[in-house]
Amino acid sequence: MTNGETLTRVGPGTPMGRLMRQYWVPALLSSEAIADGPPIRLRLLGEDLLAFRDTSGNVGIVEHQCAHRCASLFFGRNEENGIRCVYHGWKFDTNGRCLDAPNLPDDSSYREKVRIKAYPTREHLGIVWAYMGDSKDPPDLPKAPALGLDANDVSVWCALRPCNYLQALEGDIDTSHLGFLHGGKVEGDDPAVANRAPEYHVTDTECGVMYAAYRDAPNGDRNWRFGQFNLPFFTQPPPVPLGQEPALRAFVPMDDTHTMFFSITSKAHTLSAIDNPAKKTLLGGGPGISFLYDYLPNTTDWYGRWRLKQNIDNDYLIDREVQKHLSYSGIEGVEIQDMAISESMGPIVDRDREHLAPSDIMVVRTRRCLLRAAKELMEQGKVPPSAQNPDAYRRAWGGFANSSTDKNWLEVFEEAVMRADRPLPAV
Amino acid sequence: MTNGETLTRVGPGTPMGRLMRQYWVPALLSSEAIADGPPIRLRLLGEDLLAFRDTSGNVGIVEHQCAHRCASLFFGRNEENGIRCVYHGWKFDTNGRCLDAPNLPDDSSYREKVRIKAYPTREHLGIVWAYMGDSKDPPDLPKAPALGLDANDVSVWCALRPCNYLQALEGDIDTSHLGFLHGGKVEGDDPAVANRAPEYHVTDTECGVMYAAYRDAPNGDRNWRFGQFNLPFFTQPPPVPLGQEPALRAFVPMDDTHTMFFSITSKAHTLSAIDNPAKKTLLGGGPGISFLYDYLPNTTDWYGRWRLKQNIDNDYLIDREVQKHLSYSGIEGVEIQDMAISESMGPIVDRDREHLAPSDIMVVRTRRCLLRAAKELMEQGKVPPSAQNPDAYRRAWGGFANSSTDKNWLEVFEEAVMRADRPLPAV
Amino acid sequence: MTNGETLTRVGPGTPMGRLMRQYWVPALLSSEAIADGPPIRLRLLGEDLLAFRDTSGNVGIVEHQCAHRCASLFFGRNEENGIRCVYHGWKFDTNGRCLDAPNLPDDSSYREKVRIKAYPTREHLGIVWAYMGDSKDPPDLPKAPALGLDANDVSVWCALRPCNYLQALEGDIDTSHLGFLHGGKVEGDDPAVANRAPEYHVTDTECGVMYAAYRDAPNGDRNWRFGQFNLPFFTQPPPVPLGQEPALRAFVPMDDTHTMFFSITSKAHTLSAIDNPAKKTLLGGGPGISFLYDYLPNTTDWYGRWRLKQNIDNDYLIDREVQKHLSYSGIEGVEIQDMAISESMGPIVDRDREHLAPSDIMVVRTRRCLLRAAKELMEQGKVPPSAQNPDAYRRAWGGFANSSTDKNWLEVFEEAVMRADRPLPAV
Repeated sequence: MTNGETLTRVGPGTPMGRLMRQYWVPALLSSEAIADGPPIRLRLLGEDLLAFRDTSGNVGIVEHQCAHRCASLFFGRNEENGIRCVYHGWKFDTNGRCLDAPNLPDDSSYREKVRIKAYPTREHLGIVWAYMGDSKDPPDLPKAPALGLDANDVSVWCALRPCNYLQALEGDIDTSHLGFLHGGKVEGDDPAVANRAPEYHVTDTECGVMYAAYRDAPNGDRNWRFGQFNLPFFTQPPPVPLGQEPALRAFVPMDDTHTMFFSITSKAHTLSAIDNPAKKTLLGGGPGISFLYDYLPNTTDWYGRWRLKQNIDNDYLIDREVQKHLSYSGIEGVEIQDMAISESMGPIVDRDREHLAPSDIMVVRTRRCLLRAAKELMEQGKVPPSAQNPDAYRRAWGGFANSSTDKNWLEVFEEAVMRADRPLPAV
Repeated sequence: MTNGETLTRVGPGTPMGRLMRQYWVPALLSSEAIADGPPIRLRLLGEDLLAFRDTSGNVGIVEHQCAHRCASLFFGRNEENGIRCVYHGWKFDTNGRCLDAPNLPDDSSYREKVRIKAYPTREHLGIVWAYMGDSKDPPDLPKAPALGLDANDVSVWCALRPCNYLQALEGDIDTSHLGFLHGGKVEGDDPAVANRAPEYHVTDTECGVMYAAYRDAPNGDRNWRFGQFNLPFFTQPPPVPLGQEPALRAFVPMDDTHTMFFSITSKAHTLSAIDNPAKKTLLGGGPGISFLYDYLPNTTDWYGRWRLKQNIDNDYLIDREVQKHLSYSGIEGVEIQDMAISESMGPIVDRDREHLAPSDIMVVRTRRCLLRAAKELMEQGKVPPSAQNPDAYRRAWGGFANSSTDKNWLEVFEEAVMRADRPLPAV
Repeated sequence: MTNGETLTRVGPGTPMGRLMRQYWVPALLSSEAIADGPPIRLRLLGEDLLAFRDTSGNVGIVEHQCAHRCASLFFGRNEENGIRCVYHGWKFDTNGRCLDAPNLPDDSSYREKVRIKAYPTREHLGIVWAYMGDSKDPPDLPKAPALGLDANDVSVWCALRPCNYLQALEGDIDTSHLGFLHGGKVEGDDPAVANRAPEYHVTDTECGVMYAAYRDAPNGDRNWRFGQFNLPFFTQPPPVPLGQEPALRAFVPMDDTHTMFFSITSKAHTLSAIDNPAKKTLLGGGPGISFLYDYLPNTTDWYGRWRLKQNIDNDYLIDREVQKHLSYSGIEGVEIQDMAISESMGPIVDRDREHLAPSDIMVVRTRRCLLRAAKELMEQGKVPPSAQNPDAYRRAWGGFANSSTDKNWLEVFEEAVMRADRPLPAV
């Protein structure tokens, strides 16, 4: 297996697939699963699963085929605290236990031995999380700052991405594309995007990799941007005030070539970005700045959820006239611009063809971090500490901060994060 | 080749493909082939063929590519007792002989040596049958009771099934799913479906496998249900009076992942099932009981014939409210319910994941019968007797019968079949 | 690699792919590439490329992925003499040079070493040609007679063909199919198509293979038809007056299973064929004679350009009634008839199933010519002389000519071509 394959293959038994199964995985929105409502086809880390909410409100994430004769439980009846296969009536609860098997003799102990694979789930901030690993005692959810947001102040959305998780994720930890991909004012000189070759500071953290870059602020100070990669597929981007507004983004592999993206921010942040021209300016101004996207209607097939109207099949509705005169990309929407670029690389980008620049240092370090963790688990059975220690995420923040020019980048970071008076995540 | 592969692969040279080629294969409806009319793309046992009816009314089933330069005869001209390739005018009759090859010299003996593969065909009860084996002296059509129906009293219909033939067929010899898949009255106690773990009797027959199960009838008698698997892909289901109304169903592999289903019943039976509330009750009553299905318009591509409007792409129009309150499946139509379940298993179900129950004994015995026959042919060259003896099917009946409680199941069967005064099939 | 594979596989590194890369390749219409306009996805010889016209009017044909991080330059901004990747702003000119890389340090020499693959291009007669070989000093365009047409008198059109280039091309050098595929008057005896087994004369030429066949003309003379295969994928068909009206047709492989067809004729010829009933008669008369085809709207995907409305998905709109009574094919349009036949063979025809006739001698000789050239290049490194000598094409003409019966076919050819007073192509 080449490094490129190790980085990108996520199915059962692959090194990266095994690594990801050490962590909790965002699987779907809580709102998708209705008590005793229709079950949901759910592809996750290359497995075909079914999600359903039972009568008591528990969400099950189980293999989609009945243990008896492999009929799909998608057609099952979600009834009194279990899903019943409509072929012969075998019924399973959210833990995969067989509650009923009417075509077995009444005294059969066989039924008690029959199970379907079922993954532990938790719900937090409107997201159903699954633990797909072997441990009988899964860790707590990571104590990432955004996961400590109040449930009433959180804004969560999803998007299906038709490409490998890693190239999607790498767009998120790449601050140097800001000026172009999200830049407007093509025909003028925009100071906000002047420094297109920023110098990067990068360091490993307890739960991944962190970078910072700065620009000179108008008043002589420095404007710092900090970004995070958090194992195994999370990011924290810079456009929030460091230590004050947390954000967390997940690039969850559905399979090797499809990714479900989750965004978790405070409502305040999301709204302010829409309403606040200043924030728009921060992102380069002009067209292409929008945080509200249109979806196609959800359908029930494996890739039917949270597809955006602007997608690879319609070239993301690129407008070549806008591209000529107003914005570099000609594509409306910051997130859509990111999608267009990473999806345009093909289902799984061939990293051997790259020519990396110094500003790609964060991308390089993130790949190394993932490779090292996957290989150590595969070859030595070493589970990464961050998978077993939710506190490893507590001090991982992304965001922007201003400082005087004499401050070291890590000093700036420590001060801002220390100042954070946000209570620990109550997860 | 695993047993699972042996059971499900049907292309030329495979063990099961070779076995099936010992038997006559229902290929298309007679009404599809019009004298001198458009030829029909026909995939059968993994081969791409063409069906056409010539001027004299004979139906040819031939390879679809011209022997000369491999142009498809689908674009050929069906003219004066042969199909003419429109590339260079080579013309073939229904036996695959080259009748004309205008670009060969007039005295060419080459033309007489050129042939396209052509399979012997017969028409019976509105179905065109093909013999795809090597024998120059194919057997007669099997003398299955339903094939002795009067042509004026027969009802035949087809449906394209996007899955392997065997999982489709297995749904037909599985009486224990009746109560659930076809059951209604979800919220009550329905005596008609009370016994969901029936005891099965199973025995090998001259031409396959037979089972019976019983329920206690209200008057103290027993209500028996007999079902048949007949080599190589036929079934006879129970919901007809045993020995009185014959039925035959064929699950003909188009290729490993597509099946053309044929149903042959007496017209009387079909109409009565539609009109007769009693028969509906027999099947569990309530919604979901219908024997008339809507088709999509036929098209000319390889998979364009006899597709149903309710299909895997629209979840068979499942209605989750109906599923909650009225019927277990929420899907309208007994046949569609069967389709939904077997197609939901995927194109070829992985039988290694099953957990079989005692009530699956008929399925198990049928697999063994098929495996044994395929292996004996492959390894020892032994052609199954049923392939060479049409009479082997004469006493194979499916259906229901009542008896007193002291009767042995085989006695009940013999008596009912003996009583059958139906003349032998005149085929 | 079988001969069949050698003949039909065209990707980088394959024998035939290497052979074709010795020659100039028609890539797209000049009118498709607009200065500073949208770039065009272009699949050529199995490579995913991008075509764009820069501010100065030069057309670039370059790999479609940015050298930096492999984002597709399709989303790039075609600006001031280069295409700029909108991810990080790397900008490339039509020669593949990196003009700008804003995220590299200002003094970076790295930028000067970075290139994307770019193929030399030329424009001639409204077609953009690419040279995809290794030579730093590519030859001139071939001096085929049609390439000497005046730009004001040329008619060029394209069609996407969903099959391998060779089976498409072979339909063009096969004069014996005229009577059937393009023949009308099904129910009568048409002297124009009487000789359906013509005798062929074939000879190798400096740039490929040439054939001739004759019919007896009404006045006792002979009516000769000459056709050309010109390396590596060109043809010259007979229905033009030999030595007077040149035509050239190219079957350019997009990949192994898709071909872009280019037709180059004089406008006079094209118009006359439409307006002139005599020419229609030459082609067999009746329906099916048309040189104007409807396109589907072009789209931006890899297979989105120049798709015809009559195509394999709608059986080329075959009319079985027309086929019965008026024309053998039942398909409208001479070119469409050719498409239907060669595409009906499947994506890549299996030539091992053929039964060749004497009249296939031209097809056989053409395959041998291609095989020999591909193998000599692969095994001995021998570049075919025609690839390095544009003049090799000067005396290659296709067309018809009349002669008395005592003339040898090559005499007839020489005389007609000698008479050609057309100036040498000014390319």
